[in-house]
Amino acid sequence: MSVRRLLVFDENAHFYAQRLQAELGDAYEIAATNDRAKAQRLLPHQQVLVVPDTWLDDGFLAAGAGLAWVHSLRAGVDRLLASRTLPADAIVTSSRGIHGPQMAETALLLMMALARNLPRMLQNQEEARWEPWPQPLLEGKHVVIVGVGSIAQVVAPRCQAFGMRVTGVASTARELPGFDAIRPRAELPQVLATADFVVLLLPLDERSRGLFDADLLAALPPHAILVNLSRGGIVDEQALRAALDAGRLAGAGMDVFATEPLPADSALWRTPNLIVTPHIGGYADTYKDKALALLLENARAFAQGHGQDLRNRMR
Amino acid sequence: MSVRRLLVFDENAHFYAQRLQAELGDAYEIAATNDRAKAQRLLPHQQVLVVPDTWLDDGFLAAGAGLAWVHSLRAGVDRLLASRTLPADAIVTSSRGIHGPQMAETALLLMMALARNLPRMLQNQEEARWEPWPQPLLEGKHVVIVGVGSIAQVVAPRCQAFGMRVTGVASTARELPGFDAIRPRAELPQVLATADFVVLLLPLDERSRGLFDADLLAALPPHAILVNLSRGGIVDEQALRAALDAGRLAGAGMDVFATEPLPADSALWRTPNLIVTPHIGGYADTYKDKALALLLENARAFAQGHGQDLRNRMR
Repeated sequence: MSVRRLLVFDENAHFYAQRLQAELGDAYEIAATNDRAKAQRLLPHQQVLVVPDTWLDDGFLAAGAGLAWVHSLRAGVDRLLASRTLPADAIVTSSRGIHGPQMAETALLLMMALARNLPRMLQNQEEARWEPWPQPLLEGKHVVIVGVGSIAQVVAPRCQAFGMRVTGVASTARELPGFDAIRPRAELPQVLATADFVVLLLPLDERSRGLFDADLLAALPPHAILVNLSRGGIVDEQALRAALDAGRLAGAGMDVFATEPLPADSALWRTPNLIVTPHIGGYADTYKDKALALLLENARAFAQGHGQDLRNRMR
Repeated sequence: MSVRRLLVFDENAHFYAQRLQAELGDAYEIAATNDRAKAQRLLPHQQVLVVPDTWLDDGFLAAGAGLAWVHSLRAGVDRLLASRTLPADAIVTSSRGIHGPQMAETALLLMMALARNLPRMLQNQEEARWEPWPQPLLEGKHVVIVGVGSIAQVVAPRCQAFGMRVTGVASTARELPGFDAIRPRAELPQVLATADFVVLLLPLDERSRGLFDADLLAALPPHAILVNLSRGGIVDEQALRAALDAGRLAGAGMDVFATEPLPADSALWRTPNLIVTPHIGGYADTYKDKALALLLENARAFAQGHGQDLRNRMR
C-alpha cells in the first residue's frame, strides 16, 4: 500500500485533516489549507483533493495533473463533471446523502416564514406594533417538489407530516415513499398550476438550466410560493423579480443564485416578498461531522485500492 | 323546542351568525356584533353567548344573568371558569381540538427561526450582506414540551418527524404516542437541564401561573430556546428579559403575554434574541371553518336539549 498525497482545501481544512491523520495517517501524507494560493501551489503534487465543488474552476484544476480522486465536500459536483482540465480518469465523489435533514428544515422554515409573512411580523416587532392576522398553514396545502433525489426523499415525508399533499416531479413518473404522486417533467406546467408551494431540489444540468423562465413562472397561481434550494442557474432571476414585483407570485425563498455571493448591487436583495438566504440550505451545525464520516469511509476504501467502489461515485 | 336567543360577539361575528342562521335558524334567534358596547346591551336578553374567552371580563359577564351556555371561540376558557358573575349553572364549552396543526406549525417555525437567527439573516438581506453560518438543526436535538394535552399531542409527533427527541412534562408520568418519554411536573428542573428547546403548551391555572420564574429559567442550559404558545401568565416576563439580556438563554419566542395586546412601551419588543408574535399561534387561515364546524355541532345538540353532552364541555 503506497502512501498517497492528499490535500484538503476547505474552510474547515484542518478539522478534516486532523481526523484523517488520526485515522489514516499511515496511508496518506496530508496537507490542509483554506488559502487558494497555497492550495494552488500544493496541487501539482497531490493524488487526492478534498474540496467543495463550488470552490473550483478549470484554472485551479489545471494544476492537478496527478489527481486520481477528487472528493467534493458538497452534494454537488457540477464543476468537477464539467471540468476540461481534470484528468479524464480521475474518480469524482460527492458528499450527497448527508443534506436531507438540513435541506428539509430550510425548506419548511422558508415555506412557513413566507406564507405567514414573518418578515412583516419582525418589522412590526421593531415598531412595537401588535397586528395579528390569520396565519396561512401548510396543513391541507399542495407542495410540488421538483426533483425526487435523496434530498427530496427526506423533504417529502416531512411535508406529509404537516398534512400537506406532496407531488414530486421527475424525469419519469414512478412511485416513492413520502410522495402522494410523482409526475413526469413534461407535465410540469399543469402540475405547477395546482401548487400552493414549489420546492426546487433538482441538479443543475443542461435540462434544468434556465428551466424556471418567465413562461414556467407564469404557470404558477398568484398565491403560490417558490423555494429554490438547488442551484441558481435553474430560475431566471429577472423573470422571478418581474413576477414578484407584479404580484403574480406571492413569495419566494432563494438560497442559491446565478452568481454567489449575491452581488451587493443585485436588485434581488430588495425584491418584495423575496427572502434571500446565503446558500445555507445544506450548511448545518452538524455538517462537518456528517461529511467527515463519509470522507473517512471513502479515504479508507481508496487507500485499500477500492477506488472503483467509493460511495457517491459520480464518475 | 323553544327558540333561544344567541349572541355572537366576535370579530367574525357575522360569518358565524350567517352560518348558524342557515343551519339552525328555526332553533335560535341570532344576533351578531363585534362591538363591545352593543354586545353589552344585547347580553341581558341572551340564553347563549358565543365569544372568544379572551374578550371577556366579569364586568361584561355581569349582564348575562340569563345565560345557560357560553361557547368560547378559543381553546381557552380561563376567564369563563374564573368568572364570579357568570350564572353558576351555565354550561361552558371551548373550541379546543382544532388548534393542533396551527400551533405545531407556529412552534416549529419559531424554533427554527430562533435556532438559525432568521432575524439576523433578514437584517443582512436589508443590508445586502452575504453572511452564511452553520445552521443549527432540529434534527438530533431534545425538545421538552410542557403540557401533553390535545395540542401537544399534535406538536410532539411533528417534532419527531424532524428527528428530534421529544419529552413531555405532565402532572403525572404516562405514555402517549408521539412522545419518547413523559415525566412528572415535579421533575421539571431536571428535565429542563437537558433541553435544547422548550415549548409551553399548558393551560393557565393556579399551578402554572408564574411557573417559569427566575429559578426555573435558570434550570435551562444557556443554549436553550424557549417558545411560549400557551398563556402569558405562565412565564415571568421580567425574569425572561433578564435571562435573555444576560445571555443565560439563547433565545425565546413569545406569542402570549401577561397583558395583550403587548403595550407599545413594553421592553419585550426590543429584548435581544426574543421574537414577539401577536398571539397568532392558533390563528389560522382555516380557523373560522374549523371553529364553525364545532360550533354548529354544539348548537344543534343544545337546541335538542342535550346541553349536558356538548363537545369540549368544561363545566
